[in-house]
Amino acid sequence: MKLNCDLGESFGAWTMGQDEEVMPYIDMANIACGFHASDPSIMARTVHLALSHNVQIGAHPSYHDLVGFGRRSIPHSAEEIRHLIWYQVGALEGICRAEGGRVEYVKPHGALNNDMMKDQDTLRAVMEAVAAYQGGLPLMVPVSVHAGEHKALADQVGIPLIFEAFADRAYDDNGRLVPRKQPGAVHEDPDAILSQAMTLASNGGLHSISRQWLDLKADSLCVHGDNIHALAATRAIRKALHRASTDA
Amino acid sequence: MKLNCDLGESFGAWTMGQDEEVMPYIDMANIACGFHASDPSIMARTVHLALSHNVQIGAHPSYHDLVGFGRRSIPHSAEEIRHLIWYQVGALEGICRAEGGRVEYVKPHGALNNDMMKDQDTLRAVMEAVAAYQGGLPLMVPVSVHAGEHKALADQVGIPLIFEAFADRAYDDNGRLVPRKQPGAVHEDPDAILSQAMTLASNGGLHSISRQWLDLKADSLCVHGDNIHALAATRAIRKALHRASTDA
Amino acid sequence: MKLNCDLGESFGAWTMGQDEEVMPYIDMANIACGFHASDPSIMARTVHLALSHNVQIGAHPSYHDLVGFGRRSIPHSAEEIRHLIWYQVGALEGICRAEGGRVEYVKPHGALNNDMMKDQDTLRAVMEAVAAYQGGLPLMVPVSVHAGEHKALADQVGIPLIFEAFADRAYDDNGRLVPRKQPGAVHEDPDAILSQAMTLASNGGLHSISRQWLDLKADSLCVHGDNIHALAATRAIRKALHRASTDA
Amino acid sequence: MKLNCDLGESFGAWTMGQDEEVMPYIDMANIACGFHASDPSIMARTVHLALSHNVQIGAHPSYHDLVGFGRRSIPHSAEEIRHLIWYQVGALEGICRAEGGRVEYVKPHGALNNDMMKDQDTLRAVMEAVAAYQGGLPLMVPVSVHAGEHKALADQVGIPLIFEAFADRAYDDNGRLVPRKQPGAVHEDPDAILSQAMTLASNGGLHSISRQWLDLKADSLCVHGDNIHALAATRAIRKALHRASTDA
Repeated sequence: MKLNCDLGESFGAWTMGQDEEVMPYIDMANIACGFHASDPSIMARTVHLALSHNVQIGAHPSYHDLVGFGRRSIPHSAEEIRHLIWYQVGALEGICRAEGGRVEYVKPHGALNNDMMKDQDTLRAVMEAVAAYQGGLPLMVPVSVHAGEHKALADQVGIPLIFEAFADRAYDDNGRLVPRKQPGAVHEDPDAILSQAMTLASNGGLHSISRQWLDLKADSLCVHGDNIHALAATRAIRKALHRASTDA
Repeated sequence: MKLNCDLGESFGAWTMGQDEEVMPYIDMANIACGFHASDPSIMARTVHLALSHNVQIGAHPSYHDLVGFGRRSIPHSAEEIRHLIWYQVGALEGICRAEGGRVEYVKPHGALNNDMMKDQDTLRAVMEAVAAYQGGLPLMVPVSVHAGEHKALADQVGIPLIFEAFADRAYDDNGRLVPRKQPGAVHEDPDAILSQAMTLASNGGLHSISRQWLDLKADSLCVHGDNIHALAATRAIRKALHRASTDA
Repeated sequence: MKLNCDLGESFGAWTMGQDEEVMPYIDMANIACGFHASDPSIMARTVHLALSHNVQIGAHPSYHDLVGFGRRSIPHSAEEIRHLIWYQVGALEGICRAEGGRVEYVKPHGALNNDMMKDQDTLRAVMEAVAAYQGGLPLMVPVSVHAGEHKALADQVGIPLIFEAFADRAYDDNGRLVPRKQPGAVHEDPDAILSQAMTLASNGGLHSISRQWLDLKADSLCVHGDNIHALAATRAIRKALHRASTDA
Repeated sequence: MKLNCDLGESFGAWTMGQDEEVMPYIDMANIACGFHASDPSIMARTVHLALSHNVQIGAHPSYHDLVGFGRRSIPHSAEEIRHLIWYQVGALEGICRAEGGRVEYVKPHGALNNDMMKDQDTLRAVMEAVAAYQGGLPLMVPVSVHAGEHKALADQVGIPLIFEAFADRAYDDNGRLVPRKQPGAVHEDPDAILSQAMTLASNGGLHSISRQWLDLKADSLCVHGDNIHALAATRAIRKALHRASTDA
């Protein structure tokens, strides 16, 4: 079970996240590409940091919306989605290659991620974009009860999927994240976060907010490093996963 | 003698240039990368057009300045210049590769181009950026009486240079373009343009504004396609070059 | 019947519209405020041009979306809509006052205009923004069969409305513009445009695309100046309105 | 002696400064206008906060350069400087008026401020912009040994000046700020900051970095609130000024 984290989300003089603190504990860095956050110099710094910790680099493309941090759904045609993904993945790749690395996967950000999970045409456009990019890259998507259908579509398009789950978010009985506005949507208790992480890693699923068991086979856990509690949770998950793997 | 042209300089709903009209007559398309002009969809359309005419694709990176069209000198460190070049060349490459092409050279735009010709540190930063990009690309620079020094620096850094000259611009006795504000800076007469083009192509130089002979060995002529006169001049140069090459 | 036109929609080095040609024929200039088009210097030039022709100045605020020209619906809270209207109207006012004029009304642009006509909460947010701006300004809205309800809401909020209609667009039987994608949506025939303009001016309505009569009391006609045909239509309407008013 | 502080410098999802903590201790808030930082909603929130603490509102306009935080000198004509100041001051005014306040002065930000202190034409352009804005506003400029000349120019143009000084920055013998890169440029010691503040307030000057006395009559002290030490220094200055004024 690999840990992934959204990183490189500062912009110009503004800082977001504690990239240096969290990088040692993760396996995969989803790096912002300048459309919802970041700029070329922050990208170079983040790539450099990831490479120095042997962390895999993924592109984290978004709708072009700095002031909205890529969280607002903006109408795009399938063609426009392909173009903006190629642009952003290529931009990150340009920096990676010069620094001695490469982009190994793609994880859409924010509203683009939400839109592709709601709308099949958007999902297909994203998959086609990733498939056409230099021979194809794996696409990271949220695991859900629709994972099978998503896998079938990805097979058709010809790309592998990386399913990700969240340790700190509650899921409803349909395997969807409980919206942040609802009570109980985000686990605050460090033990609850750790427990959900380990259940996902060991048992291939988790208990929904109503205590139903959900089979959710995740390849990667999305963790956070933007505050002291998130950082502590990430370290605890890293340690527990390590112990579990050495025990096995 | 190859003809190059700055293309893909529309932005969103705004059109600039007559890309479809000029593309059939040129050999090399310098394509804007979103920092002074263009957006991912315009880049994709321009790449597609270039590929359909077997025109070589070059990246045309710039300072990030849409409202100033990249014509304003903005202070950057050498490191920042490397980052913004990698970002933009990579972005165009991402689109090219998906469309079945590749970026074959780099020509800096506007103020970045001017700054590198005035300031050795900027020129070195640009060269190092291009050298570090995926094993190195050729860099297009204006030919001048300093071409020898520029070549020496490029050899050090390990990249080839493509020297470009202008058929429609007057040069001073030091082999620099006469600033646009001065009288006689831009040739309006189609015969003068054609004549300077053919002298550059056949005799390896041109006459300065004061009628001095300048040895200027250019590999490529920069032509324009943004109005009916520029387009006519480009077609005339293409035809004359073709006739000269078939006569030879 | 006053003629209004969207103007000042160039941006940096990119030109859009033929503002100098159309300004002599209109009464009201809806001036872009930098969020979908324009920049401070283009705004100043457009304000100056309007004042020199005694044309009333209206602010033409938009969602912040240069690359999409303000035509894409981007989710905003009512509060955010108020803020972006105050910002843009104020910015134009700042320039107007320095040039010796003032902003006399507000006409939302593109997707913001569409959204307010589809969604009552957005319309109320726009009206409240305009009402709170320096004691209130008139709001220009498309006339429709819902004009009465819109008027009632505006009365509640405390602002006057200016109803605008289009001479060159077909209306459906519900008094809505026929979407541009449908055949017959845009009148190409100069006589048809002139005839619809005069019917709106003289008879307080028009015939829908299915030849139904619609009562639509418009205060202003939206005309265009962005191409030679639009310009000719605008001049013809101006002339016919002038003749009608002097005959009366 | 009034305390002024640069505020409202967050942008979208990115936070900068501790505006709520520092607002109770200052007299004048220099509020960013969206060109180097801020957006309409952050501006509205900052205006609201200033009004609730009876703090005077000043516009803090900048070159348009979000990624560079307005710290990079970008070439502008005098006319362009006037336009960008009118735009930004007007935008803030639009929000202020709707919230029940008004813009009371203008303090240029970053590179625009530096450029006007280095270049007389830029200073005159800024002064003319402020003079033409709705009957004229006071302009805040750094106090220096050239204060007399600046005052003479402002009299010519017809605007009042507000001279500001820094309590936490060392001055050279010519009354200029010691550049940040030089040792001793920024006072770290709270006592040194407080002492310079009180000397400026009581004695109309300060000691330069080489311990020369400089007559510098400041109307306002620029304080900071972006970290815990800056905040503590600001509170200490506020308290000492209050004590001095009640003792008197």
